Amino acid sequence: MTEHFPLAALTDLAALPARLPRYDEEAARAARDRQASLTKPPGSLGRLETLAIDMAGWRGTSRPQIRKAQALVFAGNHGICAQGVNPFPQEVTAQMVANFHAGGAAINQICAITGADLTVIALDLDHATQDFTQSPAMTEAECLDALNRGAAAVDRAADVLLLGEMGIGNSTVAAALAAACFGGAPGDWTGPGTGSDAAGIAHKAQVIARGLERHAGVSGDGAAILTTLGGREQAAICGAILAARAYRIPVLLDGFICTAAAAPLHVIDPALLDHCIASHRGAEPGHGRLLDAMAKDPVLALDLRLGEGTGAALALGLLRAALACHNGMATFAEAGVTGG
Amino acid sequence: MTEHFPLAALTDLAALPARLPRYDEEAARAARDRQASLTKPPGSLGRLETLAIDMAGWRGTSRPQIRKAQALVFAGNHGICAQGVNPFPQEVTAQMVANFHAGGAAINQICAITGADLTVIALDLDHATQDFTQSPAMTEAECLDALNRGAAAVDRAADVLLLGEMGIGNSTVAAALAAACFGGAPGDWTGPGTGSDAAGIAHKAQVIARGLERHAGVSGDGAAILTTLGGREQAAICGAILAARAYRIPVLLDGFICTAAAAPLHVIDPALLDHCIASHRGAEPGHGRLLDAMAKDPVLALDLRLGEGTGAALALGLLRAALACHNGMATFAEAGVTGG
Repeated sequence: MTEHFPLAALTDLAALPARLPRYDEEAARAARDRQASLTKPPGSLGRLETLAIDMAGWRGTSRPQIRKAQALVFAGNHGICAQGVNPFPQEVTAQMVANFHAGGAAINQICAITGADLTVIALDLDHATQDFTQSPAMTEAECLDALNRGAAAVDRAADVLLLGEMGIGNSTVAAALAAACFGGAPGDWTGPGTGSDAAGIAHKAQVIARGLERHAGVSGDGAAILTTLGGREQAAICGAILAARAYRIPVLLDGFICTAAAAPLHVIDPALLDHCIASHRGAEPGHGRLLDAMAKDPVLALDLRLGEGTGAALALGLLRAALACHNGMATFAEAGVTGG
Repeated sequence: MTEHFPLAALTDLAALPARLPRYDEEAARAARDRQASLTKPPGSLGRLETLAIDMAGWRGTSRPQIRKAQALVFAGNHGICAQGVNPFPQEVTAQMVANFHAGGAAINQICAITGADLTVIALDLDHATQDFTQSPAMTEAECLDALNRGAAAVDRAADVLLLGEMGIGNSTVAAALAAACFGGAPGDWTGPGTGSDAAGIAHKAQVIARGLERHAGVSGDGAAILTTLGGREQAAICGAILAARAYRIPVLLDGFICTAAAAPLHVIDPALLDHCIASHRGAEPGHGRLLDAMAKDPVLALDLRLGEGTGAALALGLLRAALACHNGMATFAEAGVTGG
């Protein structure tokens, strides 16, 4: 791994912002200059231009390429399901992991189209976290272990990392994390998830309110929020984000649940997420609010509410197009086109 | 070609809505049923689901595929450039066509990424249309010829057609078409195009106002609007849209200029555009207004303002992902996942 991982303790998170690599302004400037020389009106490729420039800044080269795109999907089970927050039974998590391995899920198809290497990591599915209305969801040791497993899963040879998740009940976990990180009423962050009706959504909000009340002391402490209200896949996502940063690998975050998983890092220091791109704004009503709170501008908005990394895998296609233009287009001088 | 094309006269356009193929409701219903059986919460793939269902309805099969995606980019020159509406010289149109043929433009790179076969058709670039502030831009014969050339360019073996355009001055043409088709002040439809400043935009609006005043009689007559204010690439786009419909090929429209090119068909009958998908909402300020007027919901919004079919080629990637999920995902029964 790196000099930074595995972490020995969650308290080590606080030291990371000062130690992890930062955006390479010089590479970004060179990429910006190249964009201005290409045969198009300046700025006319919109978000494709900023994606290419951001890739340059994080990869530390003016001509970044995607030779390898890694997609990591973490799966976990949640004690909060004891509160009846999800219409699907908890065994669906393992069934869907089997579906991922068999190639039958949406994420398999989209990774095949946009060219991502998918790895699915099931995190102790037969050992759900605790019900956060009764106790902290994880011990510090459990949270640290999941975080380090996420960090260890990142391939340092990747040029971009896509993150996704699967876990019955985890839209409730996500709403609890978002509320703990950014405040507001639980109902502001609660939505249908896999298919709750209005009564189910109201119940989820009540359950979250009880959890927040029980664990009011975690406020402002990202590591404690993650440990107390999160789950293993959320901790693993945090670890993967940090390891990717150590390797200068930009991250494509997926939907509401994946974005909420990263929120505790935002509480520790928003700069920890500077290399993370919001792939999309999903249909889960809390997602737009969460992206605003984290100052992330989503690339896509397709009313997705599936998770699994599907939105990140779709955004990869746009990132590939952005870099194809950046690297493959002729300059005004090369093409003999007037202007530029 | 088909029984419908080439058209013998522009007046034949009025008869087409009753004669062209319509959406196959039965195929769409079968596709909707399949979507509901796949291993995901119902509706959770959002726009990807509706794209797959729309493809089914237009292709007339519950399991549509994209074996061939054709991208057609039409280029033309415009007499309105005599009014100084564009900061680039008119020879850039031919220079960019050469750049397309050499593979150096953005559309070449994006077609390579998303898998579209690109054909660029330059329409009499050395013979610009007339200045519409002085006379109709085209004769009926010129408009009909360009329309039929557009129709003839469509490959009936394609499963989807992407349309784009290139033509110095054609953001002014597009704004004039939009204003003539949907009303409002010229300034409502006028934007920077390839790079006009505020004074340039105001000048474009004044030029358009003079054209609309001179040709006030075309109001409500789509064919007359196209002939009088349009250009060859706009007429070709209309022809290609209609030929694609005859072959049951869905169309991905590109940005403001491509969408405005289709607007005269909307005036004739909005149903003529039922098989057209708005690929994106671009940065040109009139585009969102135009999509609203045509009741089209864009797939992407990336602040593009390039044209060339680039937005359509990007949307093709999402369409491919939509069909990969539709055709490749396991059903609940196949995967042994509880639910569905």
